[in-house]
Amino acid sequence: MRRRADARRLEILSAAARVFRRCGYADTSMREIAAEADLSSGNLYHYFSGKHELLFFCQDRALARMHSALESARDSGTSVLEQTRSVIESHVRCMLDEFEGATAHLQVEALPEELRQQIIEKRDAYEQAIRQLIVNGVEQGEFAACDARLVTRAILGAANWTAMWFRPEGEQSANDVAIALAGYLVNGLIYGGELSVPRTRAAIS
Amino acid sequence: MRRRADARRLEILSAAARVFRRCGYADTSMREIAAEADLSSGNLYHYFSGKHELLFFCQDRALARMHSALESARDSGTSVLEQTRSVIESHVRCMLDEFEGATAHLQVEALPEELRQQIIEKRDAYEQAIRQLIVNGVEQGEFAACDARLVTRAILGAANWTAMWFRPEGEQSANDVAIALAGYLVNGLIYGGELSVPRTRAAIS
Repeated sequence: MRRRADARRLEILSAAARVFRRCGYADTSMREIAAEADLSSGNLYHYFSGKHELLFFCQDRALARMHSALESARDSGTSVLEQTRSVIESHVRCMLDEFEGATAHLQVEALPEELRQQIIEKRDAYEQAIRQLIVNGVEQGEFAACDARLVTRAILGAANWTAMWFRPEGEQSANDVAIALAGYLVNGLIYGGELSVPRTRAAIS
Repeated sequence: MRRRADARRLEILSAAARVFRRCGYADTSMREIAAEADLSSGNLYHYFSGKHELLFFCQDRALARMHSALESARDSGTSVLEQTRSVIESHVRCMLDEFEGATAHLQVEALPEELRQQIIEKRDAYEQAIRQLIVNGVEQGEFAACDARLVTRAILGAANWTAMWFRPEGEQSANDVAIALAGYLVNGLIYGGELSVPRTRAAIS
């Protein structure tokens, strides 16, 4: 019974993520989510108290998946470079697979304060862990010296942005995008020439 | 007279961009924009017919600035690498300077269809021009072989994402961020090792 209810909740979360993605969080009603999940509205409220709760669990699930990919990478015993590559690839797949993670990961400002705070803390911990990976890579000589905080945000920005342009009906699969993007972003970490040291100069534009 | 009216319109656009940024486009009223621009509501309508028009001109201006930085870079006679670096730096400065470009550049979906189409066309042309820059770099041997479309989107994603995390009161200026980010993103283009060729492999996560 318990297991069946859990499976049902997961199905509902997937359905909610699809509708959020299609119509935008603000324009989605519980009625539409119920229809997508093949439930009556009353039955939907039996599982989730409202849209906020659904968005919260979507985000929580996406973040749990990202954290777990990060832990697997760290435990893999491979080089920091391969760990970083694997984390980026997993992040992109999580953003694009079934188009679920994206809404989940991006619309955090739609949550009420208390729920938002929980998500932001997990997101910060995730960002912090990636940053530590990059610091380790620099310390172990695998990566060129860099501003690890900024580079982490660049990586997450490029990875999150895929949700804005990826089309599942396009030529590249989510996995193709994940691999190519991670390849490019990892390249930027290992190049150790003069270019990796930012020059100070006056603004041009 | 004409010049004074143009200057006034620019001041109003700046004021509108500040309010959009602070309160979000959806939650901003013409009355608030008028207050920020130190005008009466009636006077504001003398210059702009409504919020849509203000958002359109904000976006149009940000894109014009980005296009013009791109043309300056192309005309500079420097290496493709330096042109690319300069374009990325200018893009980030445009996103972060006075916090104007950001709202302008990101909220395109809030525009009515006809206006949105004009902005999307200019944005596509801009993306296409950056892609061409990267293709040139590869053809001329300055950059490693890469998927130019994907790399362009990675660059724009990382650059646009700065608006999500940059705080003007923080340690780094907009220009610091622009230089460091461009340095990292350009590094990824020049590394020519095995890593720049995406490997095909099964998804892990």
